[in-house]
Amino acid sequence: MSILIKNGRIITASDDYIADIFIDGDKITTIGKSLDIKADQVIDAKNKIIIPGGIDPHVHLDMPFMGTSSSDNYETGTTAALFGGTTMVIDFILQTQGKSLHDALKEWQGRSNENALSDYSFHMAVTDFNENTKAEIKTMIEEEGITSFKTFMAYKGALMIDDRQMVGLMNEVKKQGGMVTVHATNGDMIDFLVAKNRAEGNLSPLYHYLSQPEITEAEATGRFADMAYYTDCPAYVVHMTCEGALNHIRAVGKRNQKVFVETCIQYLVLDASLYDKGFESAKWVMSPPLREKKDQESLWAGINQGTVQIVATDHCPFMWEQKKMGEHDFSKIPNGHPAIENRMELLFSEGVNKGRISLNKYVEITSTNVAKIFGMFPQKGCIAVGSDADLVIIDPQEKHTLSAKTHHMNCDYSGYEGMQLTGKCKTVILRGKIAIDDNKLLLKKGYGKFIKRKKSNGII
Amino acid sequence: MSILIKNGRIITASDDYIADIFIDGDKITTIGKSLDIKADQVIDAKNKIIIPGGIDPHVHLDMPFMGTSSSDNYETGTTAALFGGTTMVIDFILQTQGKSLHDALKEWQGRSNENALSDYSFHMAVTDFNENTKAEIKTMIEEEGITSFKTFMAYKGALMIDDRQMVGLMNEVKKQGGMVTVHATNGDMIDFLVAKNRAEGNLSPLYHYLSQPEITEAEATGRFADMAYYTDCPAYVVHMTCEGALNHIRAVGKRNQKVFVETCIQYLVLDASLYDKGFESAKWVMSPPLREKKDQESLWAGINQGTVQIVATDHCPFMWEQKKMGEHDFSKIPNGHPAIENRMELLFSEGVNKGRISLNKYVEITSTNVAKIFGMFPQKGCIAVGSDADLVIIDPQEKHTLSAKTHHMNCDYSGYEGMQLTGKCKTVILRGKIAIDDNKLLLKKGYGKFIKRKKSNGII
Amino acid sequence: MSILIKNGRIITASDDYIADIFIDGDKITTIGKSLDIKADQVIDAKNKIIIPGGIDPHVHLDMPFMGTSSSDNYETGTTAALFGGTTMVIDFILQTQGKSLHDALKEWQGRSNENALSDYSFHMAVTDFNENTKAEIKTMIEEEGITSFKTFMAYKGALMIDDRQMVGLMNEVKKQGGMVTVHATNGDMIDFLVAKNRAEGNLSPLYHYLSQPEITEAEATGRFADMAYYTDCPAYVVHMTCEGALNHIRAVGKRNQKVFVETCIQYLVLDASLYDKGFESAKWVMSPPLREKKDQESLWAGINQGTVQIVATDHCPFMWEQKKMGEHDFSKIPNGHPAIENRMELLFSEGVNKGRISLNKYVEITSTNVAKIFGMFPQKGCIAVGSDADLVIIDPQEKHTLSAKTHHMNCDYSGYEGMQLTGKCKTVILRGKIAIDDNKLLLKKGYGKFIKRKKSNGII
Amino acid sequence: MSILIKNGRIITASDDYIADIFIDGDKITTIGKSLDIKADQVIDAKNKIIIPGGIDPHVHLDMPFMGTSSSDNYETGTTAALFGGTTMVIDFILQTQGKSLHDALKEWQGRSNENALSDYSFHMAVTDFNENTKAEIKTMIEEEGITSFKTFMAYKGALMIDDRQMVGLMNEVKKQGGMVTVHATNGDMIDFLVAKNRAEGNLSPLYHYLSQPEITEAEATGRFADMAYYTDCPAYVVHMTCEGALNHIRAVGKRNQKVFVETCIQYLVLDASLYDKGFESAKWVMSPPLREKKDQESLWAGINQGTVQIVATDHCPFMWEQKKMGEHDFSKIPNGHPAIENRMELLFSEGVNKGRISLNKYVEITSTNVAKIFGMFPQKGCIAVGSDADLVIIDPQEKHTLSAKTHHMNCDYSGYEGMQLTGKCKTVILRGKIAIDDNKLLLKKGYGKFIKRKKSNGII
Repeated sequence: MSILIKNGRIITASDDYIADIFIDGDKITTIGKSLDIKADQVIDAKNKIIIPGGIDPHVHLDMPFMGTSSSDNYETGTTAALFGGTTMVIDFILQTQGKSLHDALKEWQGRSNENALSDYSFHMAVTDFNENTKAEIKTMIEEEGITSFKTFMAYKGALMIDDRQMVGLMNEVKKQGGMVTVHATNGDMIDFLVAKNRAEGNLSPLYHYLSQPEITEAEATGRFADMAYYTDCPAYVVHMTCEGALNHIRAVGKRNQKVFVETCIQYLVLDASLYDKGFESAKWVMSPPLREKKDQESLWAGINQGTVQIVATDHCPFMWEQKKMGEHDFSKIPNGHPAIENRMELLFSEGVNKGRISLNKYVEITSTNVAKIFGMFPQKGCIAVGSDADLVIIDPQEKHTLSAKTHHMNCDYSGYEGMQLTGKCKTVILRGKIAIDDNKLLLKKGYGKFIKRKKSNGII
Repeated sequence: MSILIKNGRIITASDDYIADIFIDGDKITTIGKSLDIKADQVIDAKNKIIIPGGIDPHVHLDMPFMGTSSSDNYETGTTAALFGGTTMVIDFILQTQGKSLHDALKEWQGRSNENALSDYSFHMAVTDFNENTKAEIKTMIEEEGITSFKTFMAYKGALMIDDRQMVGLMNEVKKQGGMVTVHATNGDMIDFLVAKNRAEGNLSPLYHYLSQPEITEAEATGRFADMAYYTDCPAYVVHMTCEGALNHIRAVGKRNQKVFVETCIQYLVLDASLYDKGFESAKWVMSPPLREKKDQESLWAGINQGTVQIVATDHCPFMWEQKKMGEHDFSKIPNGHPAIENRMELLFSEGVNKGRISLNKYVEITSTNVAKIFGMFPQKGCIAVGSDADLVIIDPQEKHTLSAKTHHMNCDYSGYEGMQLTGKCKTVILRGKIAIDDNKLLLKKGYGKFIKRKKSNGII
Repeated sequence: MSILIKNGRIITASDDYIADIFIDGDKITTIGKSLDIKADQVIDAKNKIIIPGGIDPHVHLDMPFMGTSSSDNYETGTTAALFGGTTMVIDFILQTQGKSLHDALKEWQGRSNENALSDYSFHMAVTDFNENTKAEIKTMIEEEGITSFKTFMAYKGALMIDDRQMVGLMNEVKKQGGMVTVHATNGDMIDFLVAKNRAEGNLSPLYHYLSQPEITEAEATGRFADMAYYTDCPAYVVHMTCEGALNHIRAVGKRNQKVFVETCIQYLVLDASLYDKGFESAKWVMSPPLREKKDQESLWAGINQGTVQIVATDHCPFMWEQKKMGEHDFSKIPNGHPAIENRMELLFSEGVNKGRISLNKYVEITSTNVAKIFGMFPQKGCIAVGSDADLVIIDPQEKHTLSAKTHHMNCDYSGYEGMQLTGKCKTVILRGKIAIDDNKLLLKKGYGKFIKRKKSNGII
Repeated sequence: MSILIKNGRIITASDDYIADIFIDGDKITTIGKSLDIKADQVIDAKNKIIIPGGIDPHVHLDMPFMGTSSSDNYETGTTAALFGGTTMVIDFILQTQGKSLHDALKEWQGRSNENALSDYSFHMAVTDFNENTKAEIKTMIEEEGITSFKTFMAYKGALMIDDRQMVGLMNEVKKQGGMVTVHATNGDMIDFLVAKNRAEGNLSPLYHYLSQPEITEAEATGRFADMAYYTDCPAYVVHMTCEGALNHIRAVGKRNQKVFVETCIQYLVLDASLYDKGFESAKWVMSPPLREKKDQESLWAGINQGTVQIVATDHCPFMWEQKKMGEHDFSKIPNGHPAIENRMELLFSEGVNKGRISLNKYVEITSTNVAKIFGMFPQKGCIAVGSDADLVIIDPQEKHTLSAKTHHMNCDYSGYEGMQLTGKCKTVILRGKIAIDDNKLLLKKGYGKFIKRKKSNGII
């Protein structure tokens, strides 16, 4: 099977040119002007933009959480991803405290295997670091190809590890060639504020927001950077939302430290004014919460400064009935919102089309940096001879409107309902197969492969 | 004329893959696996690395300075550049105070035209900003393709402009779509220290170093960033050397500002201990001077943090007889050293081979970022279909030794004499012509073209 | 002549107690409970607060400026000072460029001698630092008792010195045991903005404000601190107004540097909303201009943090007719406002009574720190046995209203018209003589003495 | 009983003058030149310096710790304090986790009552904050006069509270008018390092030092300041040792926050080179450990900048036999060293005599600030009419040598053995009684009184 894509404007993290792409099997084999090669299929990409398939390093599919499960399973979630131009995702395995990492891996494999349409990998969330867990790090990296270890500085009693476990984990991960990532918020402070608000009868979604002030995220981010500095472990902060946290990362630059930073699309395009809608605001109950305009400005600047490397989603949808578990208590609202399908188009429209970022930067933060930081490069993240033929063909002029009525995520509302965008993913190719064409899904469940990842030393 | 390069490991600012490159005329037209295309010439690049031609944005050729002229003219300087893997340079035109920018342009064109072997462009150094100069900015950008305006915060009475002129210039350059670049040192403080040292009989080259302490550069860098912030003008600091200056740039990140930073190869690989060699130290008398190990660490970190975007040379050689003008007074030593030929190989050996930076980063900071920041992209700075076929083929294993005996710069000493490097530029191609092959020059004087540059808004 | 003050609440920079004070001649000789000493005069200070006489280190009396002279001469100005609880002032001598410091001293002595009612001293403003001026520093300190040297980073062509002169001056002043003080604003940037606004027809007082943005003061403050750091010279910033400038001083604390900071009462209690009153806003045209609420917060915090040591006035009044010189051009409005009489009561009411500062802090920043930093301690600045009997007795409960109708400054308007204060200076004693009693002046012109000051090393 | 002290040079936190002091009963009643008052006792203080009695806010007397007790009880400890010019101490009560604050208070009262010679107060260390403890805060402040609440961010399982408890405590203490103080080190990180070093067989005292790197203190200091900022609670960091921690406090100044800082005399005059002495280094095993020269410079600068308000001791002596509990395992060495007797003389000799601080500053940081910050002012901390007659008469010229042979602390070694000082406490007066005269103790056990303290709002 071969495909010839003609005359597209090809955008990589560094390049921008018009050419033809020839795909033979699952790889890109030739790129050139007016290629004269026979192909099983020819796609005309004139006036279109071709980018490497998006990679979303922060999704939660079919995840047990707060007594329920996120509403997209591997099938629906990766289908929606493909519709939105994302050809690979990295999901989070959550170790159960008291059990092993491998136990958790098996559980997640049971849900993902044979079900994914897009490619995927896992981060391993270490929620209980001890001598046994420590011994698993090496095999997790070398045998399973899982090289990133997620930690929580919040959710005490369920997911949180303390700082002693954190530096212990960093020490071991550094030694074995992996990376430690973090949900950086001061969970203790948040627990205090949640309890205080509940005790005072402040129960609406607004208090979810007010219980997680900027300083809780800023503090933990600085603390995490300090521990990474002391252990010299490659480090990555997930879903950063605010100026205070980013300024800590900017500050540690002065001691020659680099910590990778991920933000999510919602923190760039939505803000906390949405918490003023009564219980409807539950749609945007996520952790950390949405922030202010000043934080958006800081994050956009961070992207152009090279301080923020990745824009992800933290996709974690719940149906409205699930959200209503917290109708009378914000602390019972399942945290998360659907976004896996929207990231690429939202960022194109709000970032590229509004002149905030360049096309090259767009590719860098949605795909190339993800592949490099997490060890899938150059198999993924690029349009280059020999790489997987994961491509998205975008019509940069097409206007469309986001809506729960038309999206493919298993969620009965959208956090972006009615938002009008310019730029649409028209054709999506995954390893040489057309996955999406003109809004039709052409792949079957199980096509998606688990991608083993390589070690990294934190230099990209 | 066509060339087929087989089996090289192609490195761009983002990619890394093995393929063939087909060059038709002066452009790259096809990149692919096992290309089966007839070519006038075939080059075997197996086990070699292929990168975009280096671009050095900071050179001084045939420049009148301190009563003499830099010893490389356009012919010898661009020849040496090609030998060292640099296919384009940007030289500095110096306005004479009291005269027009166009007068200066003509003078520089008289020296460069018909003489260059590599491609080239000019920065315009504005040394006298007034109503007349202001009126020239627009035509300089739109008609001459000169979009960057260099300023000096030192050399009062010759090159320096004051802060009023600086903000005036920034205001106009911003309006017209250009960029302001700066030699950021507090010239007044330096003038005081030079005079003080001379008055006290401290006349050796060491006092050149001691008259330009880190704080003079740090202060001016911060001040320049402040003025750029206020005027919102795209801004660029040339030849940054030290932690103090870089920390100012890191700090302004907190107010969402981005200022581009260039360092030079010598500040990464040499240090101030070289000023302890009596008059021999005159070889390294340049402004700013070499700094300390801590500054090197800070600059390497800045490169990986994305805070330092470019590594240049400030190539400005003088023969030993010229240096001896200052034998009895450091202030009379012509400032500068030869490096145009050494940058690419030094950075490969000291940066890539020592694991400090990735291959992608190497290309980014020697070529791609230069092209993007200064408006030559995508014609220059990339290996992509449709781009100028400016390529360097490097043997990453070949060991060699830097020496004035073997270099091609018109300078009878080397600042790097005897330094052993791993990694050598074997073949250099400029716009589809082989310029250097196995240490032989194959181009003629006059082949080099002046490249008109495009406007930029400071987002890359 | 002796005075016994009974039962006052005595406040010094560190103490707070109720006792009697006995003054014998011009000195305090005994402090105690129920002193049983015969005195020529007995004052009942029950329920009153007694503080050391205020010292205002920043006033301009009878100063030639912008083609006119400030409207308070030594007689009227020091009279008003006494009414407001200030028993000593430090005026500024302005060297004329091209002339000597001693020439300027003589000119100022001609205006002050025999005319002052309060005690006074001079700062010497060095506007032209050269070999001749350098030679005068030592005698100025050792013979004239003038130990502080004021510099201007603005007013090019009239008062400004460049950075070369600045470091030269600092070097010499450090050597001789003095201190360098500064009007820290980037005059060049301001000149650009003034010219730009005038060219654009923006001529109202509002544009005075808009031509001196915060960054012009912040930048210059940082630069001055850098130069002081390099020369290790005791340094002092006059009339600081804004967060940006104060943050520079806070930041240099990290390199173990201390720079003294003075703010003025107007920057604590007035803000830039006053520039929205058409030409009436000329009343508050001063340099630097009033700032924003956030800057007031920063300054109040700086006082409590110990970063701001002194609250002065920059008293420089002009009659309304003089202000009208700039009716059609803000740049022609004489800069300054009347405040010498208001400082102590304003700060008491707005600072102490509103709980922003303690009584001890109030004395520290209006008197004790001034005496210590400028070399008059312990003769001045304290209530202690052996010190000059300079005392102010305040009724902390008395309410009154500020108005041009009742103030004693020679100015036909007040910047604080109608402002209601709590706390009034009832009795003022200068060197053992009652100067003011219940709103009556009891001293004669010529009573005020010139106070020679001592060297200082910047440690207080 | 009355005392007349003649002709001493009286130093307060703000003043410096020569006068006589008359003490009637336990209070100072008159200060004056040549006082002609009959007294029961006359002391000639000519050429001597008189300061307010030192107050040491950080001592541990008779404290159960690590299976033993600190070797000075109330009698020996306060006796030694008096010999060294300290007339009041504040000891720490440690709540037992699971028990009440009042239980702990009773236990400490049982050891202190009737045993102290100097005056004293308590801080209450809250090691278990819960609803019961919360209810005790108000009575502790209002009835017991204990207004400062100590917290530990280290010693998990014994003394440490987590961040949720911390903000809960701050919230309540703020409401009731108290202050929260902290031992700020990241105990989790330290626990990791201690365990790691023990596991690796690194057991000498040096590893005590290496297990508590600067970053553990810096991190926790910043985190504590963040929590204090969010709760707006008056906050105080005990025994700060390092630049990293102090820089966090300097940095929060930019958000207008003030956190009080205490350092201890040992961190100013000793450094980590003492950990290179084999097991003898156990003498200096304390937490935090001694640091580097750069940290000393930073602390001295902080004192003069006003960022460090107090110099204490953390006096916590153990006999050599007790120290030997950790002969084979640094983690078993009881932490602490004897200093209660040495602080005033060490700081006088090293601080005042070496020109690092002024005499006024000396009094401010050893006495006045302690009284103000902790609510004993103006009863304590000053030489003023009506204050307690707590005075120390120092001979500023007398040379002496510190030694365990001559000190009065119950400890068989000195951390300062053989150190030669200039300046000796000759006479010490406590509430009008001569406590020490020429090296003889004149008071009896039980003279010392418990001092109830007042509320404070953090403004001094």
